[in-house]
Amino acid sequence: MFGPMAPDPRHAPLFEPIRVGNKIFRNRFYVAPHCSGLGVEYPGAQAYLRGMRAEGGWAAVNTEYCAVDAESDDAPWVQARLIDQRDQANLRLMVERVHQFDALAGVQLVYMGADHTGFVTRLPAGGPSQVTSAMSGHSCYALDKQDIRRIQRSYVEAAIRARDIGFDLVQIAAREGFSLPLQFLWKYWNHRTDEYGGSIENRTRFWRETIEQVREAVGDDCAIVAGFCLDSFNDESDRAFKVSDDGIAVVELLDDMVDLWDMQVGHLEDDVSSSRFFEPFWQRSYIEQVRPYAKKPIAAVGRFTDPELMARAIKDGVIDIIGAARPAIADPFIPTKIFEGRGDDIRECIGCNICVSRFNNGGGRIVCTQNATVGEEYRRGWHPEQFNESEMAEEPILIIGAGPAGMECARVLGERGFANVHLVERDDHIGGHVSWISELPGLRTWRRVVEYRESQLHKLTNVAVLTGQNLSADDVLDYGASTVIVATGAEWDPSGANPITHAPIPGADADFVYTPEQIMLDGIEVPGDRVLVYDCDGYFMGSSIAEKLASEGKAVTLVSPSDQIGSYLFFTDEGGHVHHNLLKLDVELVPSHVVTSIERGLVRGHNSYHSGKVSEWPADSVVLVTQRLSRSSLYDELTRSPELLEENGITRVLRIGDCLEPRVIAESVFDGHRLAREIDTSNPAVPLPFIREQRILGWDADAYDSELTHTLPLEVSSHTTATVKSPQDRCADAFHSIRHG
Amino acid sequence: MFGPMAPDPRHAPLFEPIRVGNKIFRNRFYVAPHCSGLGVEYPGAQAYLRGMRAEGGWAAVNTEYCAVDAESDDAPWVQARLIDQRDQANLRLMVERVHQFDALAGVQLVYMGADHTGFVTRLPAGGPSQVTSAMSGHSCYALDKQDIRRIQRSYVEAAIRARDIGFDLVQIAAREGFSLPLQFLWKYWNHRTDEYGGSIENRTRFWRETIEQVREAVGDDCAIVAGFCLDSFNDESDRAFKVSDDGIAVVELLDDMVDLWDMQVGHLEDDVSSSRFFEPFWQRSYIEQVRPYAKKPIAAVGRFTDPELMARAIKDGVIDIIGAARPAIADPFIPTKIFEGRGDDIRECIGCNICVSRFNNGGGRIVCTQNATVGEEYRRGWHPEQFNESEMAEEPILIIGAGPAGMECARVLGERGFANVHLVERDDHIGGHVSWISELPGLRTWRRVVEYRESQLHKLTNVAVLTGQNLSADDVLDYGASTVIVATGAEWDPSGANPITHAPIPGADADFVYTPEQIMLDGIEVPGDRVLVYDCDGYFMGSSIAEKLASEGKAVTLVSPSDQIGSYLFFTDEGGHVHHNLLKLDVELVPSHVVTSIERGLVRGHNSYHSGKVSEWPADSVVLVTQRLSRSSLYDELTRSPELLEENGITRVLRIGDCLEPRVIAESVFDGHRLAREIDTSNPAVPLPFIREQRILGWDADAYDSELTHTLPLEVSSHTTATVKSPQDRCADAFHSIRHG
Repeated sequence: MFGPMAPDPRHAPLFEPIRVGNKIFRNRFYVAPHCSGLGVEYPGAQAYLRGMRAEGGWAAVNTEYCAVDAESDDAPWVQARLIDQRDQANLRLMVERVHQFDALAGVQLVYMGADHTGFVTRLPAGGPSQVTSAMSGHSCYALDKQDIRRIQRSYVEAAIRARDIGFDLVQIAAREGFSLPLQFLWKYWNHRTDEYGGSIENRTRFWRETIEQVREAVGDDCAIVAGFCLDSFNDESDRAFKVSDDGIAVVELLDDMVDLWDMQVGHLEDDVSSSRFFEPFWQRSYIEQVRPYAKKPIAAVGRFTDPELMARAIKDGVIDIIGAARPAIADPFIPTKIFEGRGDDIRECIGCNICVSRFNNGGGRIVCTQNATVGEEYRRGWHPEQFNESEMAEEPILIIGAGPAGMECARVLGERGFANVHLVERDDHIGGHVSWISELPGLRTWRRVVEYRESQLHKLTNVAVLTGQNLSADDVLDYGASTVIVATGAEWDPSGANPITHAPIPGADADFVYTPEQIMLDGIEVPGDRVLVYDCDGYFMGSSIAEKLASEGKAVTLVSPSDQIGSYLFFTDEGGHVHHNLLKLDVELVPSHVVTSIERGLVRGHNSYHSGKVSEWPADSVVLVTQRLSRSSLYDELTRSPELLEENGITRVLRIGDCLEPRVIAESVFDGHRLAREIDTSNPAVPLPFIREQRILGWDADAYDSELTHTLPLEVSSHTTATVKSPQDRCADAFHSIRHG
Repeated sequence: MFGPMAPDPRHAPLFEPIRVGNKIFRNRFYVAPHCSGLGVEYPGAQAYLRGMRAEGGWAAVNTEYCAVDAESDDAPWVQARLIDQRDQANLRLMVERVHQFDALAGVQLVYMGADHTGFVTRLPAGGPSQVTSAMSGHSCYALDKQDIRRIQRSYVEAAIRARDIGFDLVQIAAREGFSLPLQFLWKYWNHRTDEYGGSIENRTRFWRETIEQVREAVGDDCAIVAGFCLDSFNDESDRAFKVSDDGIAVVELLDDMVDLWDMQVGHLEDDVSSSRFFEPFWQRSYIEQVRPYAKKPIAAVGRFTDPELMARAIKDGVIDIIGAARPAIADPFIPTKIFEGRGDDIRECIGCNICVSRFNNGGGRIVCTQNATVGEEYRRGWHPEQFNESEMAEEPILIIGAGPAGMECARVLGERGFANVHLVERDDHIGGHVSWISELPGLRTWRRVVEYRESQLHKLTNVAVLTGQNLSADDVLDYGASTVIVATGAEWDPSGANPITHAPIPGADADFVYTPEQIMLDGIEVPGDRVLVYDCDGYFMGSSIAEKLASEGKAVTLVSPSDQIGSYLFFTDEGGHVHHNLLKLDVELVPSHVVTSIERGLVRGHNSYHSGKVSEWPADSVVLVTQRLSRSSLYDELTRSPELLEENGITRVLRIGDCLEPRVIAESVFDGHRLAREIDTSNPAVPLPFIREQRILGWDADAYDSELTHTLPLEVSSHTTATVKSPQDRCADAFHSIRHG
């Protein structure tokens, strides 16, 4: 799949093949197991999501956690599953898609133990000892020896099922704070006094036996991977699992028996380490401690997007294989781009963790701020690097507003070969609200949303980017575009209207009350020492503003009507870190309270559950993070006069992103991308249907995609021959631009 | 389907047919729309769940909320959906199952507006005004007139799809605080200044037009139902929707245009009114206010399980039709049982709301404390009133422990005709922990779990219930049973070990530290004025103990490591009410804190997110609600010596319920039920597989159920002829009971 070039010598170590058991990795790129919300429930989407990484050049591609037994039921969170031939039928397509592009397919076998829910099966689950899980709130039964043998048999049978459909790598996971082997390893979970508890040898016994049994069953056909959490991280209790002690011991005990180590540090929320709190490859110092004891190759994640960092990790001998989850979500073509010397085309992960948030929030499907096509490969037929040409490519298109939606829409229209795309921005730079959001504490990496698109737009000579142009409705009418796309974004509501009351807060119009834009964009320094931030939004903005002001020396009170301040941050695995940080900065946290009025020096409110339980907070200034409102006046003005539009040759006015509905950045990017992909339909405001993947009574498999605009093969037999369209080198001067007009 | 008898004259009004538009209800029983977690995703389960109510005698049976447009995407919460022929294919089976038993099938059409998530479709949604939803955290776009017409067209098209697959009732819902017509009705949502906002006539316009358009399209074939929320309840703001004003006005405006009113009061959490806070038919006083203005029949829910209350509601003319959701979940055969004069066989809903909790928790499938078969009609082939006879019905079975699992297991074994079932209980009464749980404030209704089983077991002469018998392992060996089922329950951990630390709390062994059992069962009065309750459980126990002690005059501090005290109560729609109540009782609520040590007079702890942020709470006594541990010593002792078991003719020892894994009561009941249904398999400890209902690549529809132990028809053509097995009148004296032995 690579061209004739050799990679940059500095990156050559990344492309040296390496033996893993009986398998050869063709390079050092490995997509680590990660959740997708697809599992075996969306088999087409699963296959095409994972297959896209193989196509993008990764040597090996994994599933997410895959249940080996009906007892390991984590619903509503969606796992893969290999408990019968139905699951095999569905995962087989993933293996075929991965093999089609000469990559190895891996499966991560898991039994959840006390972290199960049993919400679908209604079954209990076993654990080393009967303890209650903080993650699920569920308990477990203590496994007796018969139970241990039964569950080990389940691991073996699942491994055989995996082998039989072609999986190359079988991982027995003890990773990210969960799964039964880990629960046996950790004193936190394992209080046994028999040969499976106590010493580290005993606590390793379950994992060792399971690996032995799986190796015996499939070791000739599959490489055996130990997915290993080196350290329980940030745990100073006497039940902590420490790399310097237990971690080294386990590697010594098992190195002979495994073909590959897939190492990580900490629980899920540490492993999915947000860029707000963790540097890339912060795990290095942990892995260095066990490296001397591991003769087998080590793969590890580290939010690797920088080829230099990757090459250094390998050259230094710390790891042998670059693991990635989020970077591969943001850009499945990282290996190809590095090989081809196109590092500046990498769509770098920003570490915002929106990808995992939908999964955490009830098992939903994967999304990505940077890559709008993730999860859409199958159901919408989108390829991250391929774009179909349009029949109406000469149509002059004006996009107003170069925020996430506008930038992405322009980029995709450009990739599709539209000859006349103008992206016009009011500010003197592109980026929209991401430009100032990335100035918030810890969010610098989010600038990559702008940087990637800036560089891509620069290469697309068929797209003109014009900044510092504040277009009025008359300007738009006169512009010469036939399609007008309004992407003017949203802004924080200064009235204090919020999701609870839907009404303004009395006093919100006072001169000491601010919105985030006034602070971040207008640069206002809020007066006085005491600031109250009212967060009804529940994502990052409230706590980020509080953190910024507290860092600047203010005494900050953060009030939220919700029981959990910034509750969505717990879906992005950032909540705990954010709370810790706010407490460290002495921010006063006041959840479960609504603000009812603002006066000079004083904010009044009451408990969310009882209006008689009133509170008063002294405050010199107030920041309202209550809700966002679309900046839709331009759209409204334009659409008010269909006659005027017609007179001026404008056939349609569309709106995208926050200008339509304020949502997370990922959805704005998606919205811009979607419109650009579907701009040729008769009514592109209404998205095309997609393949849903559910049981449909009386319909056969072929009927799922009938009447949809695309179909993708469900059986794979030969390599695809889709061609990558080169950006068109067309002149974008067909518009009567206001500059030249 | 009814026998030749006439109902009790007092209940006769419940069985008078009534005309609803062009349809005739054969009686006054109506299953209101309610969530199931099935929707169109589990079409077999959906059809058999809803069809079971038809079989049980209800005149009409509804779906849950059914999306009319792709924009109305509430994932991960599972809706029904009628946006294309795939959805039709799946819901058709439900209609056929309902028709098969001579009932009418209804669909509740909904567009979610700002309450949408868009997690599957990634689409925005429209609302009357752009406001952010407290339910979803999402916003919406403000609908212009073109948008309004488009969405009304979606309603019409969904109604036509419904009509075409045979639905008899089409509901245009403005219920339970959500859906677009309601959002137009409520000033809380609707801030418009055009003809769709302002006066109540204007705010009713969207609903009226939509009803008109739907009626025009399908009104000859379907009865048109207005699902109407009469009052926004507990809202004293100037944006409240009040029955006395707006409610009456809307009924006056629309009565001519609808065929049936389906009325309720308040938001979802009020509508699913927990027995802890609401009396049956508390809605009466609201409905009485609009009754004079409604010429059309009124149906309403009221957690009706008592035939007298139902008959009175109709005789008094307040309502015409008895609506039910939870009562029909707990017992689909209520109408038949009333008709046949078997009121004492009704398995009464306890109003615990566990049914909706799984749905609220990420869209999960319905469960019920009282009815273990709910949701299992299709996938496991279970019928709530029919039980297959066993080939091994002579096998002597001993069940030890008459809590929820043991009682249910004995009941189902009895129904299956097992001739020799002994249910032996240590206490002098049956019920297990439900006996004392139902003494907690507000939980009196939960006693029905015991009462129903007590009365059913009394009728099953083949089951012997023996109380006051504390069996030792030797007693069991000597009992004469070949199958022994241990159901000895669980108890609260006195050590303070908890989900966070998995370690005891220093000081937990002091004499002023108690568990819930010590207070409720042993009747201990906790000493001193100041009590600290430490709740790591997150369901009802912590707050219930706090409420009880506060009501008795103690100064109570309720500490929880979670950000939301009793977080699972928010899934049962009780959280807000519980918090309000605790605040009213001046309970000090301390979320997000862990307890680290207990000393006389003082409890120490720190913030869950920062161990340096320490707290101290003065306390004279402490109640630990941290985790439950199985009472498994009898099981462990028995299974330790397989030889002894064999010597004594015991072929298997099984355990069920909390004795295996402490879970909610519904799961204990399920576990006992499941074992009794599957006791004949070679290893009944491992449940039989069930039909999963998902897409399986390359498999046709028939293959879903292959290799499973039951199959159910997916196409319905004639009435089923399954026979109800009568309880066997067999003598249960084959055991060597310890009493007689």
